[in-house]
Amino acid sequence: MTEQTAPSFFERLKNLTTLWRDIASPARIEALPPLRADLPEDDAEKVRAQMQACLEGRGGDVSARARAAELGRAFLSLDAHGRERFLRIMASDFDTDHGAVMAACSALSAAETVEDRARAEQTLRAQLEAPRVRLLTQFNALPDGVKFLVDMRAELLPLAKKNHDLKGLEGDLKALLMSWFDVGFLELHRLTWQSPAVILEKIIAYEAVHTIHGWDDLKNRLDSDRRLYAFFHPRMRNEPLIFVEVALVDGMAGHVQPLLDTDAPVMDPVNADTAIFYSINNAQRGLDGISFGNFLIKKVVEELNHEFPNLKTFATLSPIPGFRAWMDELLAEGEPNLLTAGERKVLTAACRQRFGEAEAVGAKGGLKALLAVPDWHDDPVVEQALRAPLLRLCARYLTQEKRPGGDGVASRARDPVAHFHLSNGARVERLNWLGDISGKGVKQAYGLMVNYLYKLNEIERNHEQYKGQGKVALSSGIKGLMKE
Amino acid sequence: MTEQTAPSFFERLKNLTTLWRDIASPARIEALPPLRADLPEDDAEKVRAQMQACLEGRGGDVSARARAAELGRAFLSLDAHGRERFLRIMASDFDTDHGAVMAACSALSAAETVEDRARAEQTLRAQLEAPRVRLLTQFNALPDGVKFLVDMRAELLPLAKKNHDLKGLEGDLKALLMSWFDVGFLELHRLTWQSPAVILEKIIAYEAVHTIHGWDDLKNRLDSDRRLYAFFHPRMRNEPLIFVEVALVDGMAGHVQPLLDTDAPVMDPVNADTAIFYSINNAQRGLDGISFGNFLIKKVVEELNHEFPNLKTFATLSPIPGFRAWMDELLAEGEPNLLTAGERKVLTAACRQRFGEAEAVGAKGGLKALLAVPDWHDDPVVEQALRAPLLRLCARYLTQEKRPGGDGVASRARDPVAHFHLSNGARVERLNWLGDISGKGVKQAYGLMVNYLYKLNEIERNHEQYKGQGKVALSSGIKGLMKE
Amino acid sequence: MTEQTAPSFFERLKNLTTLWRDIASPARIEALPPLRADLPEDDAEKVRAQMQACLEGRGGDVSARARAAELGRAFLSLDAHGRERFLRIMASDFDTDHGAVMAACSALSAAETVEDRARAEQTLRAQLEAPRVRLLTQFNALPDGVKFLVDMRAELLPLAKKNHDLKGLEGDLKALLMSWFDVGFLELHRLTWQSPAVILEKIIAYEAVHTIHGWDDLKNRLDSDRRLYAFFHPRMRNEPLIFVEVALVDGMAGHVQPLLDTDAPVMDPVNADTAIFYSINNAQRGLDGISFGNFLIKKVVEELNHEFPNLKTFATLSPIPGFRAWMDELLAEGEPNLLTAGERKVLTAACRQRFGEAEAVGAKGGLKALLAVPDWHDDPVVEQALRAPLLRLCARYLTQEKRPGGDGVASRARDPVAHFHLSNGARVERLNWLGDISGKGVKQAYGLMVNYLYKLNEIERNHEQYKGQGKVALSSGIKGLMKE
Amino acid sequence: MTEQTAPSFFERLKNLTTLWRDIASPARIEALPPLRADLPEDDAEKVRAQMQACLEGRGGDVSARARAAELGRAFLSLDAHGRERFLRIMASDFDTDHGAVMAACSALSAAETVEDRARAEQTLRAQLEAPRVRLLTQFNALPDGVKFLVDMRAELLPLAKKNHDLKGLEGDLKALLMSWFDVGFLELHRLTWQSPAVILEKIIAYEAVHTIHGWDDLKNRLDSDRRLYAFFHPRMRNEPLIFVEVALVDGMAGHVQPLLDTDAPVMDPVNADTAIFYSINNAQRGLDGISFGNFLIKKVVEELNHEFPNLKTFATLSPIPGFRAWMDELLAEGEPNLLTAGERKVLTAACRQRFGEAEAVGAKGGLKALLAVPDWHDDPVVEQALRAPLLRLCARYLTQEKRPGGDGVASRARDPVAHFHLSNGARVERLNWLGDISGKGVKQAYGLMVNYLYKLNEIERNHEQYKGQGKVALSSGIKGLMKE
Repeated sequence: MTEQTAPSFFERLKNLTTLWRDIASPARIEALPPLRADLPEDDAEKVRAQMQACLEGRGGDVSARARAAELGRAFLSLDAHGRERFLRIMASDFDTDHGAVMAACSALSAAETVEDRARAEQTLRAQLEAPRVRLLTQFNALPDGVKFLVDMRAELLPLAKKNHDLKGLEGDLKALLMSWFDVGFLELHRLTWQSPAVILEKIIAYEAVHTIHGWDDLKNRLDSDRRLYAFFHPRMRNEPLIFVEVALVDGMAGHVQPLLDTDAPVMDPVNADTAIFYSINNAQRGLDGISFGNFLIKKVVEELNHEFPNLKTFATLSPIPGFRAWMDELLAEGEPNLLTAGERKVLTAACRQRFGEAEAVGAKGGLKALLAVPDWHDDPVVEQALRAPLLRLCARYLTQEKRPGGDGVASRARDPVAHFHLSNGARVERLNWLGDISGKGVKQAYGLMVNYLYKLNEIERNHEQYKGQGKVALSSGIKGLMKE
Repeated sequence: MTEQTAPSFFERLKNLTTLWRDIASPARIEALPPLRADLPEDDAEKVRAQMQACLEGRGGDVSARARAAELGRAFLSLDAHGRERFLRIMASDFDTDHGAVMAACSALSAAETVEDRARAEQTLRAQLEAPRVRLLTQFNALPDGVKFLVDMRAELLPLAKKNHDLKGLEGDLKALLMSWFDVGFLELHRLTWQSPAVILEKIIAYEAVHTIHGWDDLKNRLDSDRRLYAFFHPRMRNEPLIFVEVALVDGMAGHVQPLLDTDAPVMDPVNADTAIFYSINNAQRGLDGISFGNFLIKKVVEELNHEFPNLKTFATLSPIPGFRAWMDELLAEGEPNLLTAGERKVLTAACRQRFGEAEAVGAKGGLKALLAVPDWHDDPVVEQALRAPLLRLCARYLTQEKRPGGDGVASRARDPVAHFHLSNGARVERLNWLGDISGKGVKQAYGLMVNYLYKLNEIERNHEQYKGQGKVALSSGIKGLMKE
Repeated sequence: MTEQTAPSFFERLKNLTTLWRDIASPARIEALPPLRADLPEDDAEKVRAQMQACLEGRGGDVSARARAAELGRAFLSLDAHGRERFLRIMASDFDTDHGAVMAACSALSAAETVEDRARAEQTLRAQLEAPRVRLLTQFNALPDGVKFLVDMRAELLPLAKKNHDLKGLEGDLKALLMSWFDVGFLELHRLTWQSPAVILEKIIAYEAVHTIHGWDDLKNRLDSDRRLYAFFHPRMRNEPLIFVEVALVDGMAGHVQPLLDTDAPVMDPVNADTAIFYSINNAQRGLDGISFGNFLIKKVVEELNHEFPNLKTFATLSPIPGFRAWMDELLAEGEPNLLTAGERKVLTAACRQRFGEAEAVGAKGGLKALLAVPDWHDDPVVEQALRAPLLRLCARYLTQEKRPGGDGVASRARDPVAHFHLSNGARVERLNWLGDISGKGVKQAYGLMVNYLYKLNEIERNHEQYKGQGKVALSSGIKGLMKE
Repeated sequence: MTEQTAPSFFERLKNLTTLWRDIASPARIEALPPLRADLPEDDAEKVRAQMQACLEGRGGDVSARARAAELGRAFLSLDAHGRERFLRIMASDFDTDHGAVMAACSALSAAETVEDRARAEQTLRAQLEAPRVRLLTQFNALPDGVKFLVDMRAELLPLAKKNHDLKGLEGDLKALLMSWFDVGFLELHRLTWQSPAVILEKIIAYEAVHTIHGWDDLKNRLDSDRRLYAFFHPRMRNEPLIFVEVALVDGMAGHVQPLLDTDAPVMDPVNADTAIFYSINNAQRGLDGISFGNFLIKKVVEELNHEFPNLKTFATLSPIPGFRAWMDELLAEGEPNLLTAGERKVLTAACRQRFGEAEAVGAKGGLKALLAVPDWHDDPVVEQALRAPLLRLCARYLTQEKRPGGDGVASRARDPVAHFHLSNGARVERLNWLGDISGKGVKQAYGLMVNYLYKLNEIERNHEQYKGQGKVALSSGIKGLMKE
């Protein structure tokens, strides 16, 4: 019988807990004096000197990190103007040394043996790494260093678009984040009503496809017939990087309002045959251009498959954000060639019924005129007339409208959401009339929504054909729509 | 009253748990056929093709990762010969394209505007990144991908020393690991008897300074007056990277055997005034040259300071691994100049007493002769005679024997352990006669051990002076030894 | 190099995770047929038979538990009427056997040796345990069995007040819960914005002292200068049992509105000298009469002491829920003897100023009349006049008004909150004029609030004196108020 | 961009972590003076007084618990003699008050209305609860209070067997532990090589069926084709209560040595069709008579069923601890009636072959003589001769040898392991010749082992028949053995 305290299960956990509070805290360095918010030149000089001290590693690595942390805190205390000046210092004063780079080029061209060449390449590579890259890395010393850098890039991106001299810094930062956010480091978590409020609050804030109206709405999206998965980085525990909302349903859902209805009954997910991915959101502006959506969707498909063996279909219910803008361009050119004879007849009849004979004549085609009817989707005559031509045109928009490729892609779908799913190997499966009749849905895409289907054994082929030849995979239903 | 199941605290945890098993598992790719262990040329060709497919990203990113994972598993199935061939394929067939690099150099030298120059630098940088770097990154798709790469480097290092054509690959791998093992990502854990056996078993295996003789010995080193801290990487949860063993004692310990004695009484750590770091071990050969020891020691000092406010002194009890070898060199040159007149007198007297007059004369100086006495340290006459000259010579060895610097260091202490602690800003505090009388201790350093002292407000200055001027910080006691 | 999957830290946790879903799930028993909601007699018979089967342990323990779980689910499917019938069955059909009890009494009185007597006592004890106690225990088989029983008691309490024949069942249930909720089993958790939403949502629902108006209000109460602690039972992870809200402030807070103001600035808690316990809530009706508040407060004092060594004062800011009702009684008896001459003068002057000469005369005393002024606390004249008499009367109410003791207490303060803190050893420290000017605060206690002070080295003495002699500890300030 | 520290996942956990160190620590009570180890009378008096103070609740509940904790620590400082005295004080001085009990009996017999009777029963029940029960409960204040009580009972059990006056205390303690260790509170954990060393070390210590020879042996029993499950109590996190070791194999294993062989190859458990429970151990002597084995086995069957859908058979490989002792009794009575004619013939032939004609005659029957051959199981002649009679007799022993029931059981199998599994509803499936040829196996049961089969849809029926009529379920194979 021993008296020794039995640590609870959780006290035990603490023994394996990171003891890391602030990586650089043990260093004893003099503090950076407080800076004015707009970083006037004399303060800028202090910043420059501190950066220099970081790069020299004065007092050893631990001290260098401590100084970088001070710099990071200083940056956070600046206003927008001051931050831009701070970034410009990093960009300009700690760039590569062009002369040294050119010298290394010459040395490489002069190298004769294989070994000399390798060494010369190594030197050149080192010269091409700007000193500011080391500085960026040292900011990782901040308690929340990774988030600091992600947010710094979010601020830097719009600035770099306007100012060429910040582009290099932005590129360096992106390269650093790409390495650190390699998908192999990310963790897929399922979020539920048991998750910490601090994370759930961010889901509410970051949802941009179908706004979450408060905590009750969120709770509904975490119900037993729903799933919400997110990627996290081990050093950004409270921040989802990207997340997807899934509904487990019977049959492929075509209308988003019932999915969002907090009063709708909850179904037993064990009986569901279809998983509908109804919202996918990138949560960090600072990670723009570093993509994990493809991995997220496929991992989630795998997880769902494992948890619900009855699931047969994995599909999205997606917005078509660019459809309306494209239609506006077409309509500006005039309707005549846009419509089939049959469509024109139906539309004219509807115009006549709605506006009277006289105005119907002036309506030309009728598409534009009927779309101008307020709340046209609540008007049975108008809605019926518009249905066929809009479905057909939307099918054409999604599958045939392209823009030049890039990233080794032959040519890409004009619609960005379509491009994302087609790149992932999905196919265009079904168009849904009045799929989203919210203000936003009608404004973006005349209320149309589309299902992209992820068929596991077609994904690789679809991807290759889309990437190689720009060929869009589509269902026979969509093909049918286009023939009309 | 609701019937709904209340998930236990742990089921709740699972909701936030990584669902990640194998990042690439959802991809449906054809399997790589099994390879023969020595990778003959036709199998090598399959490997080469698979590497090519990975780099092309055939079927999209997820598929590429799945292929890389297949490759990784294939690598693990090979024997030493096959692995070397595998590594050579990566090294040679997926190296930089020298022509393209040279062309990018020319383009850079021809660039006129600042913007052109930046773009050209960007291109050159891209050309200098060998395709195999991307391949290495893709191995992160393996369930245990980071450990895979660390172990791959452990195998690659000795090969690259002998074969120049593997050096580039080794350098690429080191650069990748340096980025991923940035100290900002590491977690400091305290290990206790509550820690998982799978981790503790590795502490037993990796301890190289003072061998751990089984689980009881380990348990003793985790007792309430001991601490064991280790760095972990978030993606290598079961593998300590580096660890340090600490004893909480009264007064600066000079002898290691009492610390290792499992029968010694346990003291109440709250009363301790000194923390003795008696063993520091790098656990991963594959991280050679990527150093965190400095951070580890300082974080641990901080943790201990926080937990035990009564601690006044933080010091090591360290081996002196190079002392004997250095002495052998000196002794080979003859003793006469090595010893002071006083020492010589004492030694000669001891020789006479031990060997008789005749032999004592032949012993010249007597140092070598007395050191050759079996178990000399148990022989009071011999031991007393040797004490003064060995302490003096060892003080000289630690503080004055140098080798050329490197890494921006002026000149470095010849003894590697001394160099490590001096770089960290510690000072040479005390030499301990008969500090380690194990076979290894006597063989390495005639049983001598040394305390390096970490005095928080001297660390930065000591580091700068050592790094800048090669100046070794030392206590008055050591200074005294050298004057004798 | 091994390929073996490295389980993440969390997968590792799962290995130590409870695998318990439903303690009785492995048993293969026939299901209880669905019952009608109001449990008519033929369904009641099925319930009776199932209870019988549970007690007989038909098919072994595991089966018995499975049957009990079925019964529990059946109970949950009933309406209020059906549940009462269910409870009556347990109460009446599975009560003690009076004849057997009396027989055991006789046997005890006949026992001669000490050993016989002990055995007879044992038998009598067994006879006095009604069979329904075993049934109650078996409900622990439900996945959420403990919560089930707590909620059952919450339903049973009001019924047992009205129906004597349910009292025995209620007593049995209380005894069971007292054993299971022994304070040694409870866990003190700190809740923060990092806590699971499912728990935080309950804090919002259960706060009854100062209503929490949604998630933003809650977040404010979890800010860095606040603390919220709760007791949990290991088998009711999502349900706080009792919780306390603490504000860390400078000086003893006397007004609750600033504490509740979500726009108030956050102070650095390290500088706080006082911890104010401003809300304590019992969250489970089913645990009425089983008290842990005393432990909660003292544990929290200890925790805060440990985290913030600068804290000097631990006090509550408490409502005085019974003051108004007591005043109403007094006022009904007429004011004359209630007021001092000085008070009467001031009140009359205020009446005159407010109502005019005529009405002031009719106001007699004036207390009642002025308290009837709508929003009197916003009227400086009225408020100033009321201040002195109300403070004095309230001091009298808190410290001198008693009701008979019970539970071994000499006599208890009439005010229930006062009784709670006085029993815990606190003292009445300060009355706060306009301490809570919310509608509820004015209605309950004319806006008065009180600080109870927990002075660590007085607690034991205060408790003993209150319990033994009914003596109320109070500050000199309160004494002063009463002398006036 | 916020600077605010992002707590790591684990720091977050701490927020939900129990802050409980010592439930009574905040109380400020005077310490109990140190006691002499054998508790002489003057020290005993101090103990008595402290017990009294605990029961009076002096200073309130928190203080009472603090005093009880002091008492608990004092108990642990005593030697065996002192502890027995301590226990006797509790047993005698804090027993029920016989007079008060008798008075309550009289009051009950005098009660006339139902309500009076209920109240009188309540009073009697209270009088029957000895004050020491409250004291026992208060020991739960110790940091490791539950373990303290379990260990106290382990010490008390042998004492109470010899001393009648400790029986009552032992009974009270058992009743308390039965309530607290209700199976609904236990957690089933799977233990793996990832489990804390402090727990695994106890598995090594507590395994009593097949000794675990150190950590390597343990690791083998946690391999991928093995499972080890244990029950834990939420307040005894480091202490398994009962554990079972399972091997996943092909076909019903009959020999234990291959299962224990650390060099045996590991099979892929996914292909296994049989789960063999080869060791079940109660780990806490202090919980004797409080049984969870039945639940453990059935929960584990359920878990395995879930993890490995291919499993068809769940069976034990069990020792037969009483077989040899029973045989010894039979053999003492002489062999003649023990053996069939056929068996006698074979045995005699073997005796002749082994001992020569002369001695064979004296051997009578031959069973005893052959069993006396050293290492008889390695001698093919002897082993072959013994096989048939021992198998037949063992089948008889397991299925027909009974002792009186108890606990409502008709009659129970003489063999305790057989009784355990038959009570659980298992059936005797197969006897295994040379199933355990270790020294212990041969000594206990002539090397025989038995498989008990858990067939899910027979369990309830088997249990009822065994319990009601003492009928032992057995396979046709066993029936066959007995007919011979």
